Amino acid sequence: MQLKEECGIFGVYNKAGIKQLGNLVYFGLFALQHRGQEAAGIAINKDGEVELQKNLGLLSDVFKDSPMISKDGDIAVGHVRYSTTGSNTVENAQPLCARYYKGSLTIAHNGNICNAPQLRKELSEQGAIFHSTNDSEIIAYLIASARIHTGSIEEAVKAIIPKLQGSFSLLVMSPRKLIAVRDPHGIRPLCMGKIDDTVIFASESCALDTVGAQFVRDIKPGEICVVTKDDMFSIEDYCGKESALCIFEHIYFARPDSIIDGQSVNSARVQAGKMLAKQHPVPADVVIGVPDSGLSSAIGYSIESGIPYGVGLIKNRYIGRTFIQPSQAMRERSVALKLNVLKANVEGKRVVMIDDSIVRGTTIANIVKMLKRAGATEVHVRISSPEFLFPCFFGTDIPDQDQLACIKYTHDELVRKIGADSLGFLDKDTVDQIAPDSRLHFCKACFTGQYPCPVPKRVNKLEFE
Amino acid sequence: MQLKEECGIFGVYNKAGIKQLGNLVYFGLFALQHRGQEAAGIAINKDGEVELQKNLGLLSDVFKDSPMISKDGDIAVGHVRYSTTGSNTVENAQPLCARYYKGSLTIAHNGNICNAPQLRKELSEQGAIFHSTNDSEIIAYLIASARIHTGSIEEAVKAIIPKLQGSFSLLVMSPRKLIAVRDPHGIRPLCMGKIDDTVIFASESCALDTVGAQFVRDIKPGEICVVTKDDMFSIEDYCGKESALCIFEHIYFARPDSIIDGQSVNSARVQAGKMLAKQHPVPADVVIGVPDSGLSSAIGYSIESGIPYGVGLIKNRYIGRTFIQPSQAMRERSVALKLNVLKANVEGKRVVMIDDSIVRGTTIANIVKMLKRAGATEVHVRISSPEFLFPCFFGTDIPDQDQLACIKYTHDELVRKIGADSLGFLDKDTVDQIAPDSRLHFCKACFTGQYPCPVPKRVNKLEFE
Amino acid sequence: MQLKEECGIFGVYNKAGIKQLGNLVYFGLFALQHRGQEAAGIAINKDGEVELQKNLGLLSDVFKDSPMISKDGDIAVGHVRYSTTGSNTVENAQPLCARYYKGSLTIAHNGNICNAPQLRKELSEQGAIFHSTNDSEIIAYLIASARIHTGSIEEAVKAIIPKLQGSFSLLVMSPRKLIAVRDPHGIRPLCMGKIDDTVIFASESCALDTVGAQFVRDIKPGEICVVTKDDMFSIEDYCGKESALCIFEHIYFARPDSIIDGQSVNSARVQAGKMLAKQHPVPADVVIGVPDSGLSSAIGYSIESGIPYGVGLIKNRYIGRTFIQPSQAMRERSVALKLNVLKANVEGKRVVMIDDSIVRGTTIANIVKMLKRAGATEVHVRISSPEFLFPCFFGTDIPDQDQLACIKYTHDELVRKIGADSLGFLDKDTVDQIAPDSRLHFCKACFTGQYPCPVPKRVNKLEFE
Amino acid sequence: MQLKEECGIFGVYNKAGIKQLGNLVYFGLFALQHRGQEAAGIAINKDGEVELQKNLGLLSDVFKDSPMISKDGDIAVGHVRYSTTGSNTVENAQPLCARYYKGSLTIAHNGNICNAPQLRKELSEQGAIFHSTNDSEIIAYLIASARIHTGSIEEAVKAIIPKLQGSFSLLVMSPRKLIAVRDPHGIRPLCMGKIDDTVIFASESCALDTVGAQFVRDIKPGEICVVTKDDMFSIEDYCGKESALCIFEHIYFARPDSIIDGQSVNSARVQAGKMLAKQHPVPADVVIGVPDSGLSSAIGYSIESGIPYGVGLIKNRYIGRTFIQPSQAMRERSVALKLNVLKANVEGKRVVMIDDSIVRGTTIANIVKMLKRAGATEVHVRISSPEFLFPCFFGTDIPDQDQLACIKYTHDELVRKIGADSLGFLDKDTVDQIAPDSRLHFCKACFTGQYPCPVPKRVNKLEFE
Repeated sequence: MQLKEECGIFGVYNKAGIKQLGNLVYFGLFALQHRGQEAAGIAINKDGEVELQKNLGLLSDVFKDSPMISKDGDIAVGHVRYSTTGSNTVENAQPLCARYYKGSLTIAHNGNICNAPQLRKELSEQGAIFHSTNDSEIIAYLIASARIHTGSIEEAVKAIIPKLQGSFSLLVMSPRKLIAVRDPHGIRPLCMGKIDDTVIFASESCALDTVGAQFVRDIKPGEICVVTKDDMFSIEDYCGKESALCIFEHIYFARPDSIIDGQSVNSARVQAGKMLAKQHPVPADVVIGVPDSGLSSAIGYSIESGIPYGVGLIKNRYIGRTFIQPSQAMRERSVALKLNVLKANVEGKRVVMIDDSIVRGTTIANIVKMLKRAGATEVHVRISSPEFLFPCFFGTDIPDQDQLACIKYTHDELVRKIGADSLGFLDKDTVDQIAPDSRLHFCKACFTGQYPCPVPKRVNKLEFE
Repeated sequence: MQLKEECGIFGVYNKAGIKQLGNLVYFGLFALQHRGQEAAGIAINKDGEVELQKNLGLLSDVFKDSPMISKDGDIAVGHVRYSTTGSNTVENAQPLCARYYKGSLTIAHNGNICNAPQLRKELSEQGAIFHSTNDSEIIAYLIASARIHTGSIEEAVKAIIPKLQGSFSLLVMSPRKLIAVRDPHGIRPLCMGKIDDTVIFASESCALDTVGAQFVRDIKPGEICVVTKDDMFSIEDYCGKESALCIFEHIYFARPDSIIDGQSVNSARVQAGKMLAKQHPVPADVVIGVPDSGLSSAIGYSIESGIPYGVGLIKNRYIGRTFIQPSQAMRERSVALKLNVLKANVEGKRVVMIDDSIVRGTTIANIVKMLKRAGATEVHVRISSPEFLFPCFFGTDIPDQDQLACIKYTHDELVRKIGADSLGFLDKDTVDQIAPDSRLHFCKACFTGQYPCPVPKRVNKLEFE
Repeated sequence: MQLKEECGIFGVYNKAGIKQLGNLVYFGLFALQHRGQEAAGIAINKDGEVELQKNLGLLSDVFKDSPMISKDGDIAVGHVRYSTTGSNTVENAQPLCARYYKGSLTIAHNGNICNAPQLRKELSEQGAIFHSTNDSEIIAYLIASARIHTGSIEEAVKAIIPKLQGSFSLLVMSPRKLIAVRDPHGIRPLCMGKIDDTVIFASESCALDTVGAQFVRDIKPGEICVVTKDDMFSIEDYCGKESALCIFEHIYFARPDSIIDGQSVNSARVQAGKMLAKQHPVPADVVIGVPDSGLSSAIGYSIESGIPYGVGLIKNRYIGRTFIQPSQAMRERSVALKLNVLKANVEGKRVVMIDDSIVRGTTIANIVKMLKRAGATEVHVRISSPEFLFPCFFGTDIPDQDQLACIKYTHDELVRKIGADSLGFLDKDTVDQIAPDSRLHFCKACFTGQYPCPVPKRVNKLEFE
Repeated sequence: MQLKEECGIFGVYNKAGIKQLGNLVYFGLFALQHRGQEAAGIAINKDGEVELQKNLGLLSDVFKDSPMISKDGDIAVGHVRYSTTGSNTVENAQPLCARYYKGSLTIAHNGNICNAPQLRKELSEQGAIFHSTNDSEIIAYLIASARIHTGSIEEAVKAIIPKLQGSFSLLVMSPRKLIAVRDPHGIRPLCMGKIDDTVIFASESCALDTVGAQFVRDIKPGEICVVTKDDMFSIEDYCGKESALCIFEHIYFARPDSIIDGQSVNSARVQAGKMLAKQHPVPADVVIGVPDSGLSSAIGYSIESGIPYGVGLIKNRYIGRTFIQPSQAMRERSVALKLNVLKANVEGKRVVMIDDSIVRGTTIANIVKMLKRAGATEVHVRISSPEFLFPCFFGTDIPDQDQLACIKYTHDELVRKIGADSLGFLDKDTVDQIAPDSRLHFCKACFTGQYPCPVPKRVNKLEFE
């Protein structure tokens, strides 16, 4: 599956005085690398002075031999980023670090502001200039403007929330404060942990585990959580709306070892597999998953169906780095550059193959072809999510509707196109049931078209009047 | 498990005239990257002229933006390398490309020549000079010397085989020939495939799959397989000895989707898990594997024991790149930088945990601690290989005997040291049974101390008289 | 001499449709590299879309293998930069490229805005955020704010000029216009040239020669020169003030082959040498210059005095690149890393040595010592400028007054400190006479303390409330 | 002038225990950078262990951030290299560092071995393999072979000298000795200096000055100078032949501040200018030199003729780095990318222009054109060397005879081709007189065709039988 999440964020108020704070932030982001592989940055605040390093590339490339990794600090914010082609420039890397009326202002953002074009236009009409095309700069301007008329940074943050439509899990660092904000629907995850007195915010709980922090709680939808040297308090004026956590965090984006708003991501995937087995049973000899995200659902399908689980596809562990393009000669053979079939496990067998979604359908068609070539007698594709039918405006890179396989083709056409013997999706009316432990409701707009907040007719990130 | 394989090799005689041969070699090596991550190189022979690029680093780093990737060619040889600290210099990267009496001579080597120090001494006494400390240069000298008195490159290769003690899967490229050689015991794997008329040699069959080649056969122990423009023939004078394929290729080194001398690597691992379940049964609630090599054995243990298989540990997919060192503060918390526990699957459960081997025992102790901290009520460690007791002289980086956990501690001490509730190794007398389909016998010297050929008392790679 | 100029700028409105505009800008900047070696950038406007590349380093480093060098374009702006330590970050590199109310806005600036802190404060109080600490961002904000209430970009530029105190030669590129501005005193140079219909602006005329452009004229102090697709016109509302071109452009900064406001730089240096010979004659055997800036004055001294000119010091041509620091052992020997004496020309001779200025006095002391060690019987130092006594606020990196040799020491002390047999400076009352062809008067504030416009009591570039 | 020297060498036996020996070698090579800009390397011997770093590029690029620069050591050898296209690979960079019969063997070579192809063939026939195409590897083999039958490294060196035809200034470092060798004709320079007890060898004396060493003497043609921990002695068996120092060292290659075999390089150039004025007088208003090598001869011409010396051409100081290619549009304008005319000094004047040589004649034609365009009324070209008529086999990159302007054209044709008003070369019968202080005679073969030793009919560096 090739959808891409927009970002991962990580912030620390180092009250316990942990040495080499940069190292802690690095490893926190390292656990969130799956949320963004195109740019990375860390800003460290020491005695009110902020030092920033950010660049395009994976964390390990950006911070190789960097002195940032061993720097001490009082507060720090980090970011990993995915971006669509064209705006993947260093200017768009985060955190954004600026100076304003009251000194330094650092922002790290995960999500997508739907009304960014209007906001950018309004700010421009007041004389604003923009160095980047990302939402963080808009947010920084709004805060800077609001700060003039308010008594504190947190009041400025509070004042601008109503202006922002869309999804945002946000970290705001001022010279002496760290503020975590989650949009009123809680579309993107954000949680809090601690190491002794040191307070940590992270997109996912796996980052807390990675740095040895204790999980405290999730940030509530609409919550503005303010950490100062001596205090921590929340502004909850925007809490209480209908929650709408992106269900794709459970299906694909998040790491399986994360727990989001009470729900284990891995358990949700196993449960999706079990439900698929009930909704789309089929006689078969082995259940396999497309690595990595399909593996847990395949185990679930196996448990529910009684069909043995097996490893059917091996993924090259070194994928994910700079990927050199295959030549025409290689592409024509549609060869197994990223995935290879484990022939011994599928030859002469009826195979149930679980993947997390179908976007354009081309990848899955290649995999089915590989399995058949390796001797699978039947390939039954099961998808651990419903059909993709609608665009996402909240930070998921779903292509235009006219490229979505489930829109372009009827079910039967799609089965033929991917070369499967049968195809079953998770029922969209039951998709909530994959996450029974979740304290939040879900945004399922990509399946249903029902968005939790107003969305633009058409969003063009680079558009500027 | 932290043992390291020495190398992977890949060679092509491009009779079918596939365009952009460099691209094919790149992806062939890419499939072998797990065999060596410290250096990589490709040599392409076009009309008898050899162009070489090699450097320290992963393939994708060495060949990023490289024109080699799109070069055409007649013959090509590639190499990925692991090396011990101290000799990890660019001079030691392979292929080795030299000019001798008869033009160019290119060599790629996987294995370890045990009598290298004596050979180097003898050659020096005849006036040889050495640019590197690797075995390939010795082999090149021997071939160059032998070629003076023989009528062809293949006869020169044949003449020197008796001088080489140890393991060697070897590719030798002359201006117009490509020769594949496997040592008489077949200690390291080597197989042949083809794309139309183009002949390919690779350390493992997964590389053939990756480039869309058809598997032809394994090179026989002792075979010298010679490919020319119009012909292909084998010299089998050294065939027929007792074979001794390194059993660790099946246990750990090779990719699970490879088939070596008739045996599926994945099936061998599943079988080891099944045998473990019989040899060391224990009542438990879940079987988990240490990723990636322990996963298949865990499935085998689950099948045989009936205890459900689950995902218990999540590995950070971005490990394997430049790894930034954790700070003292991070190390003290012995945190989950590389692996994280999937708490939902182990909390309150009796866990059977499968790993492939115990070298020093420190890693496994950390994992057991993580599992217990996550709420596992019991942790029963099962190892899909026998106890490591003897050094390897054939290309595996096993530490000195005094650092091996199975030598330093009694079984009971080791159980306590790693914090497990029980510990079971695969029985060394039955280890051959994990690979019932293998056409070769095995070298199990690291478990038994019985070596297939003479070995030195002590090998120091950098030693030079 | 170690003073550093702040910047060089180069802009093109490519009406003649010259191909590969990036190449032309590159070589234009290459001719201005002496004005700034710490950062470089080029912005190319093609059909209203601006592409920018900038980074720390010399031009050849920043644009090595860059596709920018072969890009076509309609309008382009380039910049080379020198900066004081601490703010030498990529954020401060120019051109600055932002988006505002009316689309893209690109600025390249040579000079120093004295009231930058106040302007930054005022803008901040209106909600502005700053990504950098350079003046260009302030100018961009002022233009963006002014543009809201004005009918065109040139009117916006016109509106802000009165707010800017200090020196500024400025290029402003909007989607369809290129505007060149020179501050009302004309402190920094700026000239115009053309290649067919293509209009070019450059800090110095040597850049016009380098790209094969014809020199048209200098931009007048206070002039706003606006180039559009079909037109070119000037706004001269601010012209007519007392001009004050930095005289150090002639003494040191500018390239000798440039002609600034009618005056040949080389001729000014020769003339300074002639005047020195009259003001400070001395019997001697040879006149030598400290390369490169002292050479022309040495020729002038020779002509006037009749003492033969000779090459006495050889400069390592490779200085100017990454300079590796000499070890303690090397420094103790105060060895000839950058300059070496040409012994044959000074041994046994009475030497007149010309340099352009004395800042701290340490470099010149080393050179005198080298000459004496090589056998010079007398060394008479002549300086082709008056004594440095006052700080510069217009873009020259003169150190604090308490480090200036001419303030710390009396004349006699200074002679002893540098080890010379005599020392003569150009008389400050006659310094204007070095440039008889100049159409502008000069700023000589560093010698006289009389500044052409209000200056701050103390400027701290990084200061921010 | 665009001829290229092959190499510079620098070696130290650090008896005085100077700290950070790498730093000293770096700056010694830095002073020799003009002798080779394409590759650089340093080998440091500490307690018999040799560490080597070398790569393509300028010294400052190769050793940027390198730990080599601060390493201590007992003996060290460094090299800067120029090479013809095609063999400019890292394998060919020097020093060459190998291990042989008696331990480490490090070689740095300046010169060209004419019989290299035959030697390479002979060695190959005995089983040698070659990693590079440079002569050093041949020399290393010869020494390694000779060492078997001799009692010491210096005897081995002595034994091989008769086998080497051509030019060689050579440094050989064994675990405990440093040996400097100059070929029997002394074709390339080599001198000795010292800092306290530390012995230094360098291609030119300017490198001794640069590191603060005292000049001791030149190495004699044919001398083998051996330095050990406690001793220093010379083998002079090959001394006493007719000397033949390359006269182009004085005309162009060497730095003007060097003194070679008693002769100041700068004085030789001034003298050449004086002789030119006598041999080819002309009425004129100004004498200018083509920087940098023509400047001293221009001063000489001025002194002798009484015509004033002036600066007529300004060279961009940043040339010499990575040079980005001008676009077609730039080339068509044949613009002043590297040199610019100082118009004020040539406009309306009759100009005598001195350059050091004419190879193809294209560069000089462009310069004459620039001068005329700038308003010079006459341009009289004077060349401070005789006509180039014959190839060089001793390390100078002179193109094939059919590309040499003095062969292709008659004198009158050449005058027209370069657009000059007159053209005069230094008379080949008097060229020796430029260096009256030289203790050595000269090789003038490129002017006369009379070579000091046998030369091949045709040399192809990459040729291999």
